[in-house]
This record gives sequence, C-alpha cells and structure tokens, in this order.
Amino acid sequence: CGTQKCGCGKGFLTSPGVFLLQMGWGDLGAFGEPSKETPNLDQMAAEGMLFLDFYTANPLCSPSRAALLTGRLPVRNGFYTTNGHARNAYTPQDIVGGIPDSELLLPELLKKAGYTNKIIGKWHLGHRPQFHPLRHGFDEWFGSPNCHFGPYDNRERPNIPVYRDWDMVGRYYEDFKIDLKTGEANLTQLYLQEALDFISKQQASQQPFFLYWAIDATHAPVYASKQFLGTSQRGLYGDAVREIDDSIGKILKHLQQLGISENTFVFFTSDNGAALISAPKQGGSNGPFLCGKQTTFEGGMREPAIAWWPGHIPAGGVSHQLGSVMDLFSTSLSLAGLQPPSDRQIDGIDLLPVILQGKLIDRPIFYYRGNELMAVRAGLYKAHYWTWSNSWEEHDKGIDFCPGQSVAGVTTHTQEEHTYLPLLFHLGRDPGEKYPLSFASEEYQRAVEHISELVQQHKATLVPGQPQLNVCDQAVMNWSPPGCEKLGKCLKAPESNPKKCSWPH
Amino acid sequence: CGTQKCGCGKGFLTSPGVFLLQMGWGDLGAFGEPSKETPNLDQMAAEGMLFLDFYTANPLCSPSRAALLTGRLPVRNGFYTTNGHARNAYTPQDIVGGIPDSELLLPELLKKAGYTNKIIGKWHLGHRPQFHPLRHGFDEWFGSPNCHFGPYDNRERPNIPVYRDWDMVGRYYEDFKIDLKTGEANLTQLYLQEALDFISKQQASQQPFFLYWAIDATHAPVYASKQFLGTSQRGLYGDAVREIDDSIGKILKHLQQLGISENTFVFFTSDNGAALISAPKQGGSNGPFLCGKQTTFEGGMREPAIAWWPGHIPAGGVSHQLGSVMDLFSTSLSLAGLQPPSDRQIDGIDLLPVILQGKLIDRPIFYYRGNELMAVRAGLYKAHYWTWSNSWEEHDKGIDFCPGQSVAGVTTHTQEEHTYLPLLFHLGRDPGEKYPLSFASEEYQRAVEHISELVQQHKATLVPGQPQLNVCDQAVMNWSPPGCEKLGKCLKAPESNPKKCSWPH
Repeated sequence: CGTQKCGCGKGFLTSPGVFLLQMGWGDLGAFGEPSKETPNLDQMAAEGMLFLDFYTANPLCSPSRAALLTGRLPVRNGFYTTNGHARNAYTPQDIVGGIPDSELLLPELLKKAGYTNKIIGKWHLGHRPQFHPLRHGFDEWFGSPNCHFGPYDNRERPNIPVYRDWDMVGRYYEDFKIDLKTGEANLTQLYLQEALDFISKQQASQQPFFLYWAIDATHAPVYASKQFLGTSQRGLYGDAVREIDDSIGKILKHLQQLGISENTFVFFTSDNGAALISAPKQGGSNGPFLCGKQTTFEGGMREPAIAWWPGHIPAGGVSHQLGSVMDLFSTSLSLAGLQPPSDRQIDGIDLLPVILQGKLIDRPIFYYRGNELMAVRAGLYKAHYWTWSNSWEEHDKGIDFCPGQSVAGVTTHTQEEHTYLPLLFHLGRDPGEKYPLSFASEEYQRAVEHISELVQQHKATLVPGQPQLNVCDQAVMNWSPPGCEKLGKCLKAPESNPKKCSWPH
Repeated sequence: CGTQKCGCGKGFLTSPGVFLLQMGWGDLGAFGEPSKETPNLDQMAAEGMLFLDFYTANPLCSPSRAALLTGRLPVRNGFYTTNGHARNAYTPQDIVGGIPDSELLLPELLKKAGYTNKIIGKWHLGHRPQFHPLRHGFDEWFGSPNCHFGPYDNRERPNIPVYRDWDMVGRYYEDFKIDLKTGEANLTQLYLQEALDFISKQQASQQPFFLYWAIDATHAPVYASKQFLGTSQRGLYGDAVREIDDSIGKILKHLQQLGISENTFVFFTSDNGAALISAPKQGGSNGPFLCGKQTTFEGGMREPAIAWWPGHIPAGGVSHQLGSVMDLFSTSLSLAGLQPPSDRQIDGIDLLPVILQGKLIDRPIFYYRGNELMAVRAGLYKAHYWTWSNSWEEHDKGIDFCPGQSVAGVTTHTQEEHTYLPLLFHLGRDPGEKYPLSFASEEYQRAVEHISELVQQHKATLVPGQPQLNVCDQAVMNWSPPGCEKLGKCLKAPESNPKKCSWPH
C-alpha cells in the first residue's frame, strides 16, 4: 500500500460505484413501500444519506443513462428525437444513432486519473460498433446493448446479444435464458458475480475503479433467479427487487470485507420512475407521486437515491438537495480530483459539499421529454410548461402511464401548452401534483417570475446536440455483432432501409 | 419501590400509553412522506416496531375511538347508524347517543388493576352527561367532547367546551383560541404539558397509568403553535404534524428521563386515514393507498402504527401482522395481567406475542361503513362486497374523497353491491387497489372461498348493538355543560326537536 492509488489509505483516489436500475421512488422500504422488502437498501440508507428530491434526466432509460455518463441533458448530448414534438425516444436495436464521439463520458475522463472502468448490465447508448462502451472509456463490459426484449425469430429481428468486453458471448433467450412464463432468469446473479470479481481484482491490484452496475431485472420482462421466485409479497416484480436488494447488500459487504468501503463512494439510483403500464405484475411503485415512466410528472422522474461512503457520510443523513443523475458525473470527477470539461455546458453539479458538509445548493431541475422542456422545478415549486401523459390513441389501446390517476387539466391526453401561464404546483404541500396554484395568487406570480428567469437563462445558453434518435433501420440490428463468427451466431442483415423512427409517446 | 405496581422494577403493571390522532399512513417519514419531517416518530419506529398492515375500525373518528376503547367493532358497540345504508356517522354536538353503559371500556377494566386513567384531547364518544369519560373509567380528562369546529354564534349553535375532569373550563374560540386565518393555536402545547405532568405525577406516586393522548391538531381546522407555524415544507398541515412529532418525542424522552420507559408500553396510531378532502392545505397523505378518510379503501383505513417499549421490543422491528386499533384494548389488558370480558364478543386480539416474540396471528380485518360490511382482508387478499366513495350529489358539490384518483368500477359514486362476486385485490402486488383479480382465475376462487367462510362465521355470530348515531337534536348541544355556571358560560337550549340525523356519506 505504498501508492496514492491503493485501496487502504487516505489520499488515494476514491472509487465511485453507481447502481442504476429501473425502480420507482416508492419501491424501497425506506421510501414507504408497504411490504418493506429491501432490508439491504434500507440499511444502506441508514448507514448513508437518503436523497428525497433526486431526479433522473429523462423519464426513459437511454437518455437518462446518456445523461448520467455525460453529465449533460439529453437535449445537449443528442439522446432525443425531433421526429415529433415532446416524444420520448430510446435505443431499440434498429436505431441508427448512439453516443456521439464528441461527447466526453465519465469513464473516459476517469481513465486519465488511472481508473479502471467497468459497466455491468445494460449499456443503451447505441449498439453499432462506433458506440461500443469500450470505445467510450470503459475497460470492461459484461451485459447487453439493448433491453432484454424477446425472444425474436432471428429472421425479422435478431435476439439481443450479451457482450463480454469487445465481443458478444451469446444471445438472450438462446444462451442467456429468460423464462417468460415463470419469470426465471439468473442474470442478476451473473451481474452480481461480475461485480464481486471486478472489485476483488481491483482491490488486489490496488487500482482505483469505476463500476457502473446497470442492471435491468425490474425492467419488463421482469425476471428473478429461482431462489428469489415467489419470495415477495409483491409478485414477480418484488422478487426481482428482492434479488437486487440482496445483491447490493452483498456488494457493499464485499467492499467492507476487502477493507475498501471507506475508499469507495457508492450511489444507488434509477434511470426512470416505475413503469406503471407494467403493473401490477411487472410494475413498481412511485409512492405518492403522479403517474410513472414516460411522463414528466414526479412519478416519472423523481427517483430513489442513496449515497453510501462509510467513514465519510454521517449515518442516517437525509438531504433535500435537488439532485440529478447528471450530478454523478460531476461528483465522481470531483472524487477523482478531476475537473469537469470546460469546453461545454455540464448540467451536473458536484454533490460532495451536500454529502459531506450538509450544504444545499440552489439549482433548478429541468424536465425534458424529447425536444421539449416540459417543466421546471425550483425550490419547492414546479412549473409545467407542457402537460401530456400520452395520446388518446395510445390510451385507447390500453397504454396508461397514470393508471387509477386522473387530474383534470394535468394528466392530459393531448399535448397542452402552458408556456404563457404555466401550471404551478407546490411539491411540499402537494407532492402528488393535484392542486395547481391559483394564477391570481401572489405566490403564483412570485414563483413563476423566478422560474421564468431560470428558463430564459437556460434557453439562452442551450445548444441542442445533433439528435441521435431520429433514424431507424432494420439493417443495423444486432445481426452480426463482433464475436458472432466464433459462436456461429452471425445472422444475415436485410437491406438497408433507413426511415424515421416512430415514437408514439 | 416495594410494591408490584411501582414504575421502577420488574413485575409491576406496565403502563400503556396510546397516541391517537388523525394522520394518514403516508404522513410519517418512516412511511415514505417525501418531506421526511417526523424525526421523533421515525426514531420511535427505529427503537420499536413498525406495523405496516395496521387498521382502524372505521374510516371516521368517533366509531374508531369507540372501537379502540371497547375492543369491539362499531356495529357491536353501537357507534353506527341505520338511518341509511353504509353511511358514516359520528358524534356532532347535536347527537343524542353516545357510548352505552353496557359497553366496558378499557379504562374501566384497567381501574380494577389499580391503574389511573387519563384522556387528553378529543373524547368523541358522546357529550351528554351519561357519556362523560369520567363515568366510563377515566379518572382525569383535559380536552373536548367534540371536534374543534367553529367558531359558532352561541345562539344557533354553541361553541365546543373544553373540560378539565368533570367540568368545562372554557370554550373553543373563546377561552381556547384557534385562529382560523393563521392556523395558530397552542392546544397541542397544552395537551403536551398535560401529558408530561400526568406522567410525572404517576411516576412520583408509583402508580400504573393509562394515558390516552387523543389530540386533534391534524383534524381540520388544522392548527399549530406559533413556534411551529411556517416550519414545514408541507404547509399548515405539516406544521401540525411537526408539532405533534415534537411533542411525542418529548413525551418519550420524559418517560426515559423518569426511568420508566422500560415499564411503559407506548403505541402510536391514527383513527382514520388522512382526510383528502382537506388537501392540500389541511389534508395529509395516505401514501400509495387509494382514497382517504370516509372510505373503506386502504387510504381510509390503513394507519401508521408504531409500538415502543425499550428493553422489551427489539429495535427496528417490522411486523406484517394484520392489526387493528381494537387490539390496543386486548393488548393493554394483557399488559395489565387482565383478561378481556368473556360475556361479549371482543374483536381485538392481544398483540404481545406479535410484538415480543415476532409471531404472526391469522385473523381477518373487517371494513365497515356504518351498518354494512364493505370489505374483508385475509392475508394479502382484500374482497370488496360493496364499493362506494361518495354519492354523485356530494361529489358534484366538490366533496371528493379520492382526489386525482379514479379506478373504474372501484371508486364508484353509487353504492355498488358485489356480494355474490366480490371485487378481489392482492394488496401485496397491488396496494393501491387498482387491479381487481379476474373472476375466472383459480387464485380468485381460492381466495374468495376462504374469505366467504370468514364472512359467514362473522355474520353468524354478529349481534349488532343498538345504533347510537341515529337521532340528532339541537337541544342536546353543549349549551350548558357542567361547570358553565361558575364561568358564566351557560347558554339557553332551544326546545327539543329530535330527528333523524342526516349522514350523506
């Protein structure tokens, strides 16, 4: 332990670990889930700091993950579409775009400070060769580029590959089984073992590391290992949550047993609110908040969040700091003694003063859906400039992002513009966004005036990135990922036929 | 400390204390309220046992309080009406009825074991002389017989009196100020001081005690003391919650400082779910549950609940025992070494095996609204035999018990009978009661068969009490309560004109 980078002394480079998954604010016992089945996450919160006002950057997975790794809003880093107004977009396997080379990702920067970076789980920042995570700063990868949808027929659509580092090592439903009938899949166990092994290796070589544990068991189709199936009061979704909770407990314990917990900053959060369309069998809970994934109501964007760093973060802390997944970019750089890039706008802030000194930093939260700024939160006020849950057409097909909830004029099924008279909510008195403040009130006028200034400043400096999620093409699907030859898993791609992707939401 | 009844040794009679108030499941930080402003209650939970599946006996105050003190469902103890079907009723000041002499109240029974009993706060079991709490087992009283509605003109309707023991000592809005404009009132501080003094006195005389701290600051019109006004993120309701939280912290600390915390069993719960009609300014949160006060959905009847008894209850315990406020009757008797009366049906169960040995007792929860069994919970299943939120007529007046929530066929505005094909929910997978199980499923049939048996058994042995909440009469209002002469506060009652009370909900 003679270097500045070892895992057992002061002054070394702290290893940031990020757990990212699709879970709702209300899915943790510590956040009031009535079955209270997350003892490890609750313990993590009891030993660390709970963030109650923490947000993702988009109510959908790909743009959120791009924002986390770049510290920038999707509208800047290109993870949005202009095919329609205020439409959510992501990276299905026919997407042509992905993370631009011009973006600087957290692992790229950490690398300069000697970090080894690993992503375990879903990448979701593009699956074509130029978007490969090992081309964007990661040293290791075990996981897949897209969601684990399927099974497909490998003719119209190939099954999603699973990669180890540069090459695919199999495909979902073929080599990595997911039983859609029982919900059984051992993927979380594989991801857990990968994490434990990686941490052990880094500790043994006394190398600082960044581990991005981006698992997806709670994303439909939800799955859990056999030993967890049927163990939750909450059904299959709860089984998946329990397995994740158990795994996180094991990872934290591993850090402790290796003696590096005081040198490892760990953050747990989610990339979007629980997908209520998948409820009750495959959907989680957003607690008292309105609607879920795909919407810019609190249920779509407020996330559970816990910071853990024994010996540094006082146990049992609670913070009302308005936080964002993008802050993990800036905070991790800060932990590594690095500065964020100065040649571009970074939306994340360094949370260390919040976490270590209990400070509160005044900053707004911008709620985007695709290319539109839907809402802004400043302090306890949230102004909606646009409201939309989903279209009547989609709703009539049974797609409901707000099941059992309906707030007149708020959970609208047409895109309603409120630019000149935003709908204003006080999230302290009304966390469920049910009671817009009276336009005539002094409180309204004061708050909206303030937020409007923030919006003006934001828009004045906004340089939108080239939209990456506009073009889809069957030919770019995962037909023949690198490594397919060795496995005999190469498939013949159809002819290229690029077209506008369809984004109904 | 030479007797069996002292407060400082083993083998003495444990003093039960019950905190009862109107608060929703989701109002506590420990239950996921996003502002997390209840550090003392959260600490109480961390030191004690959290009940996640705890219920009141009725979604309205008077019947719940009658049930708590008798250990019996309102339909047995008379706290219901037959003026209409499935109507909530309570004890406004023109009510003629009250707690029948034939009912045995917890303090009456505890008295036989040498306990001194005090009620602080709202009695709500009838205000006419024969219903006075000191005629039903209590030794001391500081508080009022009815809600603190007002101010009244003392001609059409008198202001509500506040009693000290047998006599009134003033009236709300006259001698006990409540400022409806600012929400300021120091009542919680008075109730706190009463509690601290009573406990000190009992400790000094080494007498076991039962303290029923039945405060009402979170009941509309919501109030808080000056020092708490404006301190909450949640507005006035949150200020009231903070003051209650602070007071409970002080009471628990007082027990510890007097050295009797290990001899004092304390239970915190609520008499009904948060009144969402009073939101957002004066209403609380029922977390992820459906609707609120007045309804038999989970939001109306599932309550926050914490048992605290240092040295006996392991810290940080969590129980999924289906519990009821009526269990506090049986549990308190058990603590005092007493048997519940054997000449009548008692609905409460002794929770000590649950609390001290972690047992789970199989028992159903019956959800009544007035004279109708609306729903039954057994295990994780809840069957609705009747659904009703409120009438269209009331709803159209703006009375909404489920603001922002609407579940087709569930939150109905007509009384819908489902006796032959109950609506069934799995509260683990679907705590929000949004997804009725398919009638055709095996799961449905198995669960409903079981619950139907429980209903049959229940109905077969049910002997309804004489309904106490049918008749109202202006002449019985608090015109001239005992003690009014000394204060010059006697008012002239109008002529008696008894009529059926009107219960719209």
